[in-house]
Amino acid sequence: MRAVVLSDDHQVLVEEVDDPILPGDDGAIIKVETSSICGSDLHLIHGDIPSAGVHPGHEVVGTIVEVGSHVRNRKVGERVLVSAVVGCGNCDSCRRGDPVSCPVTGPIALGTTPQWHGGQSEYMAVPAADLFTLVIPDGISTEHAILLTDILPTGYLGAEMGKIQVGDTVAVFGMGPVGVMAVACAQLFGPSTVYAVDVVPERLARAEAMGAIPIDATSAGGALGILEATQGKGVNVAIEAVGAQVTITDALSCVSARGRVSMVGVNLQMDFPFPMALAFLKALEFRAAFAAIPSTWAQLLPMVANEKLVLDDVFTHRFGLSEAPAAYDLFNRRADGVMKILLDPTT
Amino acid sequence: MRAVVLSDDHQVLVEEVDDPILPGDDGAIIKVETSSICGSDLHLIHGDIPSAGVHPGHEVVGTIVEVGSHVRNRKVGERVLVSAVVGCGNCDSCRRGDPVSCPVTGPIALGTTPQWHGGQSEYMAVPAADLFTLVIPDGISTEHAILLTDILPTGYLGAEMGKIQVGDTVAVFGMGPVGVMAVACAQLFGPSTVYAVDVVPERLARAEAMGAIPIDATSAGGALGILEATQGKGVNVAIEAVGAQVTITDALSCVSARGRVSMVGVNLQMDFPFPMALAFLKALEFRAAFAAIPSTWAQLLPMVANEKLVLDDVFTHRFGLSEAPAAYDLFNRRADGVMKILLDPTT
Amino acid sequence: MRAVVLSDDHQVLVEEVDDPILPGDDGAIIKVETSSICGSDLHLIHGDIPSAGVHPGHEVVGTIVEVGSHVRNRKVGERVLVSAVVGCGNCDSCRRGDPVSCPVTGPIALGTTPQWHGGQSEYMAVPAADLFTLVIPDGISTEHAILLTDILPTGYLGAEMGKIQVGDTVAVFGMGPVGVMAVACAQLFGPSTVYAVDVVPERLARAEAMGAIPIDATSAGGALGILEATQGKGVNVAIEAVGAQVTITDALSCVSARGRVSMVGVNLQMDFPFPMALAFLKALEFRAAFAAIPSTWAQLLPMVANEKLVLDDVFTHRFGLSEAPAAYDLFNRRADGVMKILLDPTT
Amino acid sequence: MRAVVLSDDHQVLVEEVDDPILPGDDGAIIKVETSSICGSDLHLIHGDIPSAGVHPGHEVVGTIVEVGSHVRNRKVGERVLVSAVVGCGNCDSCRRGDPVSCPVTGPIALGTTPQWHGGQSEYMAVPAADLFTLVIPDGISTEHAILLTDILPTGYLGAEMGKIQVGDTVAVFGMGPVGVMAVACAQLFGPSTVYAVDVVPERLARAEAMGAIPIDATSAGGALGILEATQGKGVNVAIEAVGAQVTITDALSCVSARGRVSMVGVNLQMDFPFPMALAFLKALEFRAAFAAIPSTWAQLLPMVANEKLVLDDVFTHRFGLSEAPAAYDLFNRRADGVMKILLDPTT
Repeated sequence: MRAVVLSDDHQVLVEEVDDPILPGDDGAIIKVETSSICGSDLHLIHGDIPSAGVHPGHEVVGTIVEVGSHVRNRKVGERVLVSAVVGCGNCDSCRRGDPVSCPVTGPIALGTTPQWHGGQSEYMAVPAADLFTLVIPDGISTEHAILLTDILPTGYLGAEMGKIQVGDTVAVFGMGPVGVMAVACAQLFGPSTVYAVDVVPERLARAEAMGAIPIDATSAGGALGILEATQGKGVNVAIEAVGAQVTITDALSCVSARGRVSMVGVNLQMDFPFPMALAFLKALEFRAAFAAIPSTWAQLLPMVANEKLVLDDVFTHRFGLSEAPAAYDLFNRRADGVMKILLDPTT
Repeated sequence: MRAVVLSDDHQVLVEEVDDPILPGDDGAIIKVETSSICGSDLHLIHGDIPSAGVHPGHEVVGTIVEVGSHVRNRKVGERVLVSAVVGCGNCDSCRRGDPVSCPVTGPIALGTTPQWHGGQSEYMAVPAADLFTLVIPDGISTEHAILLTDILPTGYLGAEMGKIQVGDTVAVFGMGPVGVMAVACAQLFGPSTVYAVDVVPERLARAEAMGAIPIDATSAGGALGILEATQGKGVNVAIEAVGAQVTITDALSCVSARGRVSMVGVNLQMDFPFPMALAFLKALEFRAAFAAIPSTWAQLLPMVANEKLVLDDVFTHRFGLSEAPAAYDLFNRRADGVMKILLDPTT
Repeated sequence: MRAVVLSDDHQVLVEEVDDPILPGDDGAIIKVETSSICGSDLHLIHGDIPSAGVHPGHEVVGTIVEVGSHVRNRKVGERVLVSAVVGCGNCDSCRRGDPVSCPVTGPIALGTTPQWHGGQSEYMAVPAADLFTLVIPDGISTEHAILLTDILPTGYLGAEMGKIQVGDTVAVFGMGPVGVMAVACAQLFGPSTVYAVDVVPERLARAEAMGAIPIDATSAGGALGILEATQGKGVNVAIEAVGAQVTITDALSCVSARGRVSMVGVNLQMDFPFPMALAFLKALEFRAAFAAIPSTWAQLLPMVANEKLVLDDVFTHRFGLSEAPAAYDLFNRRADGVMKILLDPTT
Repeated sequence: MRAVVLSDDHQVLVEEVDDPILPGDDGAIIKVETSSICGSDLHLIHGDIPSAGVHPGHEVVGTIVEVGSHVRNRKVGERVLVSAVVGCGNCDSCRRGDPVSCPVTGPIALGTTPQWHGGQSEYMAVPAADLFTLVIPDGISTEHAILLTDILPTGYLGAEMGKIQVGDTVAVFGMGPVGVMAVACAQLFGPSTVYAVDVVPERLARAEAMGAIPIDATSAGGALGILEATQGKGVNVAIEAVGAQVTITDALSCVSARGRVSMVGVNLQMDFPFPMALAFLKALEFRAAFAAIPSTWAQLLPMVANEKLVLDDVFTHRFGLSEAPAAYDLFNRRADGVMKILLDPTT
């Protein structure tokens, strides 16, 4: 089959590779219908993590074409979406839909190592299909299904970890795809105001159209913007959806006493300069995590189905699989207003 | 001054009475701007509770004209709304805004005993004004301020006690004023569906306009209607806003395993026929309470100010204070599509 | 093999019956080491539920002698305890260890129907062994293992549903085996006082030895006893471990404002005379449920292993399986200070 | 009166100063019975914060000798303990017993600025006496009363922020007075194991006597010690009671997936090297705060009164007020096994 393959020097190639084989008795093979490119895929081509031989792609929708003998609740022909993150598939955590806490393998992001190929390809192997796939009900669009594989659960986690109470004020830092999801999800918890912080005018306009108050961080910075907008009080909850030092620091700086800071933008510094004095004096609560994706589906699927989420269309571009190198290039350059790109494996 | 007064035989009169005097150093006198008639006022004229000499009215907005010497945060000239329920004003519970838990006096509903006159009158005495009044910010309408004195906090309590989680299904029984508030407030917690149960077509239409799915309980009953609408699964949360045996039983019957039943419709039977087997087999959680009104203001005021609540206009009629007998008569007959009635003390 | 069998007229017999067969690919057969008689077994011999052909026994410890081909985490030779309650074994609820919420089969108490035989016998079939059995680590006594099959999780549920906060006062109604477990578990949540209500002097003495304050309900009744002991304030939490009308009513009557009433004593009346006025005026929270047994093991096993629970020895009698009729008779008559009886299948 | 006074160059003096005057109509003057020296008092003599003219002492027990005209619930002659931290005394937060969240003044530690003198003196002024003092019931020892002014609520906060669940494993870093309180309080939440980390043999022995498992961090470090003791799994909750970089880093390093890290040891670095990667990959929750002391009294007082807390005697030394310089010197040198020192103002 054809698949996106990363070379030793982080180049994006499209190559003919072996078809995947069943990853155990509880696994499945799916024929990919659509995949998309995620911001975290860029870590592979930037060389932040080893990429040689990786087949990327952890946002995948497709149809089951083969199931292992121990799969009980999925069958050939079903249209499914796949969790971006999986675990051992056989522990209490995985059974609860939480591979992030899996004590056996830890969380595994599909498409980031040669052991677990992703789905920017024609076919894809999925472990523990009963746990890590979701049958897509009629009426759910392909785009919404793709969102449920990763960034919608991640945006939801941002909102949920913030413990937003009715009447709270919320600031979301970064109006990339995950930030957009966080704005949508924050509104499910009854905040009185959601501020959206970014520096790109179109992104701020998008946030405003979603019901948020845009805060342009270009000149004074995001924390000052929030403090100004709140007459110095700060917000109850800050959701960080970028992972950069400046936005994390802003998030920690813009909350009021007993504020909650929730981080879903990935930052892996081991010596991040953390303002401990602020944490203490404001009695902050700080949380960072990857989403336990399958555990969110029971909640998020009916919200998507009943159109209770303002999911602005973040898919700005569509490419054929064979055009993946160009797609990645565009995405990497953040050109042409790109937010997210869909890849069609049939072309 | 003039005030609505209840006679020994539960008649509604408008009489000239003594002006109120300060109820302690921490109290205040307000000049009433508007009051309204609440469904629970009918208990007085139905003789359910003693009413002789009571001046009713616990939904009141007005302007402070006198404050006690120990009042710290209110001053003459401020426009305030008054909590329908008060307590001793000096215990930990009252200080937290929760007179419902006051161990000294217990919750006192203003305007239900001759000791604590209400505000369907020209002036009104309010105890512990720092705790039991809220200064009305600019931009809040009189109608919204009236809602904050009682039925909006009560509808909110219905939703809050139900512990609605994102994605949950919710049923609200009774589309009277409190039920309407409960539908509005339930939507703040991210349910996937809100069902609204009633038997009056206009009330069902109103609920539908608010985004709820109407369930007509006329023929088969509310519980069956909910079970039918949910393919037999039942809802996660039922909010009872009537207080009748049939609707309480329906609420207990229509929830799924681990369902929560939240009762804000008042029922004071000491031998209510409770389906204990259902409670056990479904692992239900059942709660009933009066609202700790002042404790909700910090959350609800910004929601009202920022128009985050779909507060359909429940005030269907306006009368002068002198017309109170006619207003009560209309309200009691539930005629003319009446939901709530405002009383103007100047006429 | 030999098994306790209930006759059409609710007699307890010991008969030779067919050996059990594997209940599906995910099931297991265990050789029973010990079982015990539970208070709820009496429902079968009292004729409260149909019993013809039932092999009772839902508190069972044994060794696995056969596993189905899809069992992943259990193997022949392992010593296990079995959950008293099971479900379909294949839904999200069952996977989380919560068969009580299973939407497929609902909770199934083993040993209460001919479809699911229990373990007062030489061998026993267990469904979904990965989910519904627990491997017994070295150092756990047989008696403690038996407790983990049913009554310790049930007593824990009583405490947990009561949402005991540090400093709270707690009353436990009924010092039978479940009540004893509830007293032990309540103490894990930091109460300032635990009251234990019963009418049997030895049971009250046992409670006192466990650190509770005994309240003899013989003369004035349990609620009055609690109110007297608390200077009229009542307790924050009441745990009902009997299921009788009088103790449930007492539990509802003895709590203070915002009290929680948690019921693990089984009562299946469909028209229980519930004091709704109390629920309202005190803003009570009422919960009743069967324990989701497997979901409690991760918490309770280390507590038992580390001797953090004051588990008074509730096993007062031991019989051979062949003596089961005499054992049941003694248990039914509540004679000889009986609390719980162990049955040895080898004799 | 005589008072401990800090000189411009951070010397501890005992001087004759003016008697305190009522700090507002809601304040009170108390005649000090006992005060104690807290670890945080050392910040003043180390010059970490300005100290010129400060009268230190925020752990104080005494008798009311004068009350302001607006004080409602305290009267002359009552024996009280005083909250170490106060606020404006007139906002919603202060009324709830939470001066830490006071939006008017922020939290004020008594005895740290010349505006708010402490109580290492013969008399002391206390603001908002209704909120910030607690009447000491009969049967509470002076030592226990002193603990309730500061370090017991602080240790309790450490345990509470850790959200310890029944069965959890807990590590407490630092067996100074606050750490000892944290060990005692952690045990109220039903942990299966509490590890106590320190490097001083006597402190480790003390922890073991309290029921904790001692971990000597001298050689390998605390995090490694915890990981070794837990077979690499780490603990569910880490409570940091030192405030040093090494112990904070250890606390963040020794928890397992979804661990909670609770910091009550004070650290005010603005660029603390925080292991963000760990926070992310383990899905940690991190909280730091000062205790909202008055809000804890309703919970902690009955625990102390009923002897439900293992409060090892941390008061190792007693001095007269006139000997304060020597007492501070001893305390600063950590000599002679000193934990906490009581000061008697009569000598």
